[in-house]
Amino acid sequence: MSDGHFSDRLLEAIESKRSHVVVGLDPEYGSLPPEILAAHPAENYATDRVMKAACYSDFLCRIVPAIADVACAVKPQIAYFEALGTYGYALYEDVVSMAQKHGLLVIADVKRGDIGSTAEAYAQAHLDVAGADAITVNPYFGTDGLEPFFKRCREAGKGAYVLVKTSNPTSAELQDVALQSGEPVYARVADLVEGWGRDAVGERGYSSIGAVVGGTHPTEGAKLRKRLSTVPFLIPGYGAQGATAGDIAAFFDERGTGAVVNSARAILFAYKKAPDKHWLDAARDEAEAMRSALWQAAGRA
Amino acid sequence: MSDGHFSDRLLEAIESKRSHVVVGLDPEYGSLPPEILAAHPAENYATDRVMKAACYSDFLCRIVPAIADVACAVKPQIAYFEALGTYGYALYEDVVSMAQKHGLLVIADVKRGDIGSTAEAYAQAHLDVAGADAITVNPYFGTDGLEPFFKRCREAGKGAYVLVKTSNPTSAELQDVALQSGEPVYARVADLVEGWGRDAVGERGYSSIGAVVGGTHPTEGAKLRKRLSTVPFLIPGYGAQGATAGDIAAFFDERGTGAVVNSARAILFAYKKAPDKHWLDAARDEAEAMRSALWQAAGRA
Repeated sequence: MSDGHFSDRLLEAIESKRSHVVVGLDPEYGSLPPEILAAHPAENYATDRVMKAACYSDFLCRIVPAIADVACAVKPQIAYFEALGTYGYALYEDVVSMAQKHGLLVIADVKRGDIGSTAEAYAQAHLDVAGADAITVNPYFGTDGLEPFFKRCREAGKGAYVLVKTSNPTSAELQDVALQSGEPVYARVADLVEGWGRDAVGERGYSSIGAVVGGTHPTEGAKLRKRLSTVPFLIPGYGAQGATAGDIAAFFDERGTGAVVNSARAILFAYKKAPDKHWLDAARDEAEAMRSALWQAAGRA
Repeated sequence: MSDGHFSDRLLEAIESKRSHVVVGLDPEYGSLPPEILAAHPAENYATDRVMKAACYSDFLCRIVPAIADVACAVKPQIAYFEALGTYGYALYEDVVSMAQKHGLLVIADVKRGDIGSTAEAYAQAHLDVAGADAITVNPYFGTDGLEPFFKRCREAGKGAYVLVKTSNPTSAELQDVALQSGEPVYARVADLVEGWGRDAVGERGYSSIGAVVGGTHPTEGAKLRKRLSTVPFLIPGYGAQGATAGDIAAFFDERGTGAVVNSARAILFAYKKAPDKHWLDAARDEAEAMRSALWQAAGRA
């Protein structure tokens, strides 16, 4: 059963690769390496969007293999693909398959959530058709807007990370408002997530229904780690958004696991800070440095 | 300026068409009329998804013109399109343009929301590239995850409806939890929405930043209508989900405006309850009946 359980598969990847690193695939056009831009001159393409899709494809098909043995998973951010319309959506589906062929788990960062019948269509889109291993989802609708995703976690080896405490500056406006219990809104969401995940706990002790907790909130992360013993964390906010390995330490359990950490821009575009390296080497070196820093922060080295 | 302001344009459409009706475009395959299914036999197509996309295209290209003068807007539910992968995404973009050519405003029901840089990519995808007039968005990230959408409301004549109180059975799990103020979580979101919309109020007194409030919650809807005098409502839950015109009455202001009401399945698949009519006539008649019932509920007839 271990083969088919998302969280078990992810924990196995962490151990075998000695890495908590998730590489975020956010192919921002303005940051692509000059070599990629030069290979796709605008005059070769009918439209700006087709040209950009060709650039993204070229970039991602080269960078994913370069980081494949340093990362346990990749996290394509679908918004960057949707911004190119149909060309981008086709590429999103390709990138999911391509990354899996390189031995990576794929967490599709789609943050979907809707009423039940609509959520079923979203689950088909991203877990069945695109075939991602896991996705991110939004809790605002409550249980029946998430059940189609959770069903695939229990029955089809998929994973779902529910937004709990996000990494952005204004996350407090709604997530930190105090409830009558004195606790913030996100603590209520955290408890819901634990309940949702109870039927999807794998052999290694973690559920396939996890929580997104921003690395920019280490105090909250430490409290949530203690409170949610079977809920794995997906931690954005490392690198470009400001969280350090020291901030992340509290998000790991006493075995140094239970969390994976995403970095996108700081890895993808590491060449900007390393002008003497090829952009692929710069990205790989940055991912390696992140792997080491996190391994140490998790108490493993 | 009225020409370019989303809420002014929508209120003008309500008056000129004497209709608060939004037709939801949720092309569920299993409910399509037999005529559509028969026209697209599986053996004509390489894959199941291409066949379904052809069915959806045929269905929508016929039903949208049939309801175009009875509805003020259509609301494509992107999940049904994404469920067909790239073929569906291409059709989603086509449907937005096609409906606009028939004089309809298009509210893309995408419920997106993320950190600021990602939200900018989503705003490009749906308001710029797909070119919808308005979209639905999720409030969980707070202001900086919504600002790219709001900027286009203030500056580019676009609209955004923020989820406040949703129509589904488990909406209470998070949205109704009591805050220290004694009010539910969704009331906090409602106040945020009013604040966000203050700089985007049009000549007719309503903002281009509105709220999604489920028609299945008439008591809450009446309170929110009094509380949010400049926030227009998008009301799901009519028809198949159970809300009646009587339930909706309290969502209108004293002039009988300030809200539009969505119905999808009950209109699109009205033929199922009217076996003696052609499916297009059944859909049009159902939309007409909804228009009359709402016009009366709004105190206009």
